[in-house]
Amino acid sequence: MGDCVRLLDQTLLPTKEEYLDIKTVDAMWEAIKELKVRGAPAIGVAAGYGLCIGVQKFQNLSLSEFRQNTLQVADYLSTSRPTAVNLFWALDRMRNLANSWSASNSPQEAYQLLVAEAQQIEREDIETCNAIGEHGASLLDGLRGVITHCNTGALATAGIGTAFGVIKKAADRNPALQVYADETRPLLQGARLTMWELKKAGIKAKLMTDGMGAMAMKNGLAQAVIVGADRIAANGDSANKIGTFMLAIAAKHFLIPFYIAAPLSTVDLTLESGEGIPIEMRGAEEVTKFGGIATAPEGSEAFSPAFDVTPHDLIAGIVTEAGVLRPPYEESLQNAFQQRSHLSSK
Amino acid sequence: MGDCVRLLDQTLLPTKEEYLDIKTVDAMWEAIKELKVRGAPAIGVAAGYGLCIGVQKFQNLSLSEFRQNTLQVADYLSTSRPTAVNLFWALDRMRNLANSWSASNSPQEAYQLLVAEAQQIEREDIETCNAIGEHGASLLDGLRGVITHCNTGALATAGIGTAFGVIKKAADRNPALQVYADETRPLLQGARLTMWELKKAGIKAKLMTDGMGAMAMKNGLAQAVIVGADRIAANGDSANKIGTFMLAIAAKHFLIPFYIAAPLSTVDLTLESGEGIPIEMRGAEEVTKFGGIATAPEGSEAFSPAFDVTPHDLIAGIVTEAGVLRPPYEESLQNAFQQRSHLSSK
Repeated sequence: MGDCVRLLDQTLLPTKEEYLDIKTVDAMWEAIKELKVRGAPAIGVAAGYGLCIGVQKFQNLSLSEFRQNTLQVADYLSTSRPTAVNLFWALDRMRNLANSWSASNSPQEAYQLLVAEAQQIEREDIETCNAIGEHGASLLDGLRGVITHCNTGALATAGIGTAFGVIKKAADRNPALQVYADETRPLLQGARLTMWELKKAGIKAKLMTDGMGAMAMKNGLAQAVIVGADRIAANGDSANKIGTFMLAIAAKHFLIPFYIAAPLSTVDLTLESGEGIPIEMRGAEEVTKFGGIATAPEGSEAFSPAFDVTPHDLIAGIVTEAGVLRPPYEESLQNAFQQRSHLSSK
Repeated sequence: MGDCVRLLDQTLLPTKEEYLDIKTVDAMWEAIKELKVRGAPAIGVAAGYGLCIGVQKFQNLSLSEFRQNTLQVADYLSTSRPTAVNLFWALDRMRNLANSWSASNSPQEAYQLLVAEAQQIEREDIETCNAIGEHGASLLDGLRGVITHCNTGALATAGIGTAFGVIKKAADRNPALQVYADETRPLLQGARLTMWELKKAGIKAKLMTDGMGAMAMKNGLAQAVIVGADRIAANGDSANKIGTFMLAIAAKHFLIPFYIAAPLSTVDLTLESGEGIPIEMRGAEEVTKFGGIATAPEGSEAFSPAFDVTPHDLIAGIVTEAGVLRPPYEESLQNAFQQRSHLSSK
């Protein structure tokens, strides 16, 4: 690892493809906060590297001072956004590593171990995305169309994406598959990012506004919905970008399956249900403006939650690297974790 | 009536308050097509005056030629937009009048009768809005919040509005009532017009994106939904601005009442169900752009229906000038029409 991390500034897409060279932990904190890097798995990967950047300069201190700084930087990065659990999961891996250092490690060795861990998080995310895509693709077999929301592709992960990975693998098998992408107000991740990725991947795509999903289902244009998640509770309740919940309710109304695709790192077994997931509220101006232009009268108030929680009983399946999990999720999620820890302890 | 009709150009709100002087029938056709005037009742009123402007110059012809031109101009105006039935209803009133002229009428007299009819349509709309507001206000008694979609106020009618009229009368009784206004993509009538009207009326308002309604219901912020309609079939199925259907499905999920507020002129008894309502599809650029700025990559395709149809079984009541109609709507709508024709024949 060099002295900076290069990120594509997602706030400028699709108009500009501009890269940011992140050289300080403050710059990484801000990049996460300002959604220049976004998507739950990508935030986890970015946080790992962000921590390395933040502690690089402390290698000349004693090991215990280096450890203390590592834990402090991890605490600081964890305040950047509250909902996506992958952020905390990645930082916990870094913290656990720091706590495992023995007195025989030099700070330079400790730093190299942190870099290796950040790289490992990235590598695992790539593999995880591939596995999610493979497991989920058959869920879309034979469908004419599928609806997705927000962005869950290469821009949201280190790999091919979560829900986007499933769509990509399904479109490889069935090139006629038509994707209906919600524009995803207020920040238009669907219009700006997903449509850009779908185009690059050569997948058939139509953009629609967030209020059109029911009509696409009613008219038989789409026979499934698949989205990502920012945090999944032990019972399967899933937080995802605002607007997801309405799609899930509509899917239930039309008896169309609604799927979540996410790595197990998105699952927070410490939370019994979605009631415990903190929902980030964002500034009114994200709703009252559109691309910098005011859409509502000066001084308008807004309701501006960044996420909503889709209850488990609206979810037909959760596609993870361990396979497609089915209800009851208390059991299937628990089993997936046990299986994983069994494999990693071998 | 002078030689022009003055309209507030709604496409420029809330940034600019600019008026259009409509002097030709082509200009009125375009104003309707381009949504400079919009809202089902307002389109009806505008069409009545538009026809007068269009036939003014034919007063020097014979009566039969004047009649023929009147019918032709009515046919032309009816091609401006396909979904809102008030357009056809107003033009039918003008056509029926033209067909009632006797040989003793001069073309000048005939023209004055058309102007009087257009004025009568406007006057009736003002009275109708007041009656809808009075009948509907008690539906919102004791509620903390109500959700609305698109614009149904003074900008959409000749009077205080339909759903907006109900909200206005309810807020007069309960000033703490909080309105959650959907921004209403793609053309943002909620953000641009409803928030502007709510502010002018001094009603408590928060703007939200079209995907946030379920969360506002889940969190107990809103206990009812009320919207307008562009066409209502004999069974109560109601076409309204795209995004309405998803709100109605969400309201059912949360057992929250979903109301339609519309004049009886919006009801099309010739259609058995909503299946027969033509849905206007608009250009992809309404979805892929905003204010001239591309939100999606160049050349993106879009799904762009202007309306959707909410089935009658999701509608708790239809607020009309004849009172709040309840299911089964086949009966209650029929009764409302019979009552009205009984009253007008007295």
